Amino acid sequence: MPSVYLDHAATSFPKAPGVAEAMGRYLTEVGASVNRGMYAAAQAAEETVLSLREELCALFHYPDPACCILTPGATWGLNFVLLGLLRPGDHCLVSAMEHNAIMRPLHALAARGVAFDRIPCDRDGRLCPDAIPRLLRPNTRLVALAHASNVSGTLQPAAEVGAICRARGIPFLLDAAQTAGHLPVDFQALGLSALAAPGHKGLLGPQGTGVLLLTRELAQSLSPVITGGTGSVSHLEVQPDYLPDKFEPGTPNLPGLYGLEAAVRYLLETGVETIAAREDALTGRFLDGLREIAGIRLAGPAGRDGRVGVISLDFPGRDNGEIAFRLEQEYGILTRSGLHCAPSAHRTLGTGTRGTVRFSLGHSTTEAEIDAALQAIRALAEG
Amino acid sequence: MPSVYLDHAATSFPKAPGVAEAMGRYLTEVGASVNRGMYAAAQAAEETVLSLREELCALFHYPDPACCILTPGATWGLNFVLLGLLRPGDHCLVSAMEHNAIMRPLHALAARGVAFDRIPCDRDGRLCPDAIPRLLRPNTRLVALAHASNVSGTLQPAAEVGAICRARGIPFLLDAAQTAGHLPVDFQALGLSALAAPGHKGLLGPQGTGVLLLTRELAQSLSPVITGGTGSVSHLEVQPDYLPDKFEPGTPNLPGLYGLEAAVRYLLETGVETIAAREDALTGRFLDGLREIAGIRLAGPAGRDGRVGVISLDFPGRDNGEIAFRLEQEYGILTRSGLHCAPSAHRTLGTGTRGTVRFSLGHSTTEAEIDAALQAIRALAEG
Repeated sequence: MPSVYLDHAATSFPKAPGVAEAMGRYLTEVGASVNRGMYAAAQAAEETVLSLREELCALFHYPDPACCILTPGATWGLNFVLLGLLRPGDHCLVSAMEHNAIMRPLHALAARGVAFDRIPCDRDGRLCPDAIPRLLRPNTRLVALAHASNVSGTLQPAAEVGAICRARGIPFLLDAAQTAGHLPVDFQALGLSALAAPGHKGLLGPQGTGVLLLTRELAQSLSPVITGGTGSVSHLEVQPDYLPDKFEPGTPNLPGLYGLEAAVRYLLETGVETIAAREDALTGRFLDGLREIAGIRLAGPAGRDGRVGVISLDFPGRDNGEIAFRLEQEYGILTRSGLHCAPSAHRTLGTGTRGTVRFSLGHSTTEAEIDAALQAIRALAEG
Repeated sequence: MPSVYLDHAATSFPKAPGVAEAMGRYLTEVGASVNRGMYAAAQAAEETVLSLREELCALFHYPDPACCILTPGATWGLNFVLLGLLRPGDHCLVSAMEHNAIMRPLHALAARGVAFDRIPCDRDGRLCPDAIPRLLRPNTRLVALAHASNVSGTLQPAAEVGAICRARGIPFLLDAAQTAGHLPVDFQALGLSALAAPGHKGLLGPQGTGVLLLTRELAQSLSPVITGGTGSVSHLEVQPDYLPDKFEPGTPNLPGLYGLEAAVRYLLETGVETIAAREDALTGRFLDGLREIAGIRLAGPAGRDGRVGVISLDFPGRDNGEIAFRLEQEYGILTRSGLHCAPSAHRTLGTGTRGTVRFSLGHSTTEAEIDAALQAIRALAEG
């Protein structure tokens, strides 16, 4: 039985062509660290890392590669902004659809005197930008938002939120975990101050990598959370204050960065627009098919507008975990059931107690796989 | 010209047999995340990660795999302990030989009201345990120590420090960046409360990996620094309080962990004692050879006792950076010059203004490579 991988929201699989090869090449042929040796291999590694920063900037339409921080993953970048910026007495706005990568640091900050509010969202998970102004306080220092929900795929009106933030001079942090590589994301057009993304989801690179883009202005006002050796200004026992070193302590994950560089190069060559159009068509096909099936409930937008290809189903009267298990065992369809590290989103969507079975599409998904999933869902829902 | 890699203190090269293969296998065949899917590939990944924890515990003689935290690198683990434990008003002791992975977080903490003192060290970089009791204060909450210096290879009397800490109930954090995989390190015999090590140096795994071993007692008193989704207790918006999840937010670096698992398995099969004996003999050969060469100054212990195979040379009257450059260009010998992210150590060793050329040995170093290095050093020093 061939397996149908529909868990791209957890991690993309397969990775972009060339990722494993680039990592293998680094490990067996290069081997050196960056900023920590002057020999040729160390310089080759440095050039690859610089190319990666430039390619990520091209991908997100951001002009300054020095402001492209390489992190161990999106969670780390989100923490860097939340913990590096918010101080006791500050206030932060998030949506009612956030992942625990934002909610858990916020709760940790709340214990130290940071307040936060959730921008209400409708039953499809979409926030209303008009609700924001009345939630803002004089001490609101940040608005942080998942660009698209990892539960329902709901896309937020980031540009509208960005315009509100920009007009008031409030930094705006976007969690692009479910959109980077899936949709064109324009840092400047969205009015962002910071964007965090994992390297291993839509960017098609390996786990253990991530990116945090920052405006210079925000970067300056952030305290680095984790500090250590940077291979730069080594005579100083304080973290250097320039970018990207300020936020990149310790030896970087070079095999991972080589892999991510191959992946982002592939994305630029293929064009995110092309991938987005493909995934959008497949999402439409999936949603159309679901409409014909009784005994299921879709959590989130029923149409293909305003969403990405992350589709959560509830099988009322059934155990959703068991459905996911049977999807794998009987049909070879790999999904993920439960709360997806996003209890806030599940409460908003009305699936907080039962969780859902999540089908998430990616660059490698085919029409045949969508049809196989639909057939299996129908058999299980109506069986 | 074949190159002679003597920069193992920055990162080991080549990696252990099987590392690149394990990572390639994960990337092309497994692909799934852990704690985030129930399908077979996700379970296979989980088993590998559990094996890794067990193997690391076997390596460091620590009984509880749940207390084996997997980190993006040693710097992260050191930060987790320093930032997670020390509060304004607390005091911390370090040696005068620390790397910036400890000094920079400590300076960041000092700005928030944490005090620290350096245990004085002799000109070889060795601290005197007798100096510790008078430096301890009623508010001393931590002693943190590099097990061996990344500049001079000087080994600290960790067991003696551990005994002093244990007698007074003060947690003891060991930075094993230059000893893990090079020497037998026994967590319990050294009286440790925490041990941080990178995966990519003596452990022979890839960059982007690391380990933090914690006693349950210390783990309980640490606040997690970085929080986020853990794939566990997902209905809660606060970080879970149990191990290892409390300190492992976000998607783990699975390709890296597969690589590290292959590396640690190789170390256990080979035996760290065997590697230590080989490296000790090579270090002795190197030091013996250096004694015959005029025009150089060794920073750190001149004998092979009380040290590891990290050997720093000053070429008085010459530019050490240029010496390192010529070692590569003319002899194919890869070293590292400068301050090695450890200005405190260089001040202690009396090389603070000039830095040194560092030769660091590893599992793959041969007698012929040592002899080639000696010949090149002689030619450059006397030339």
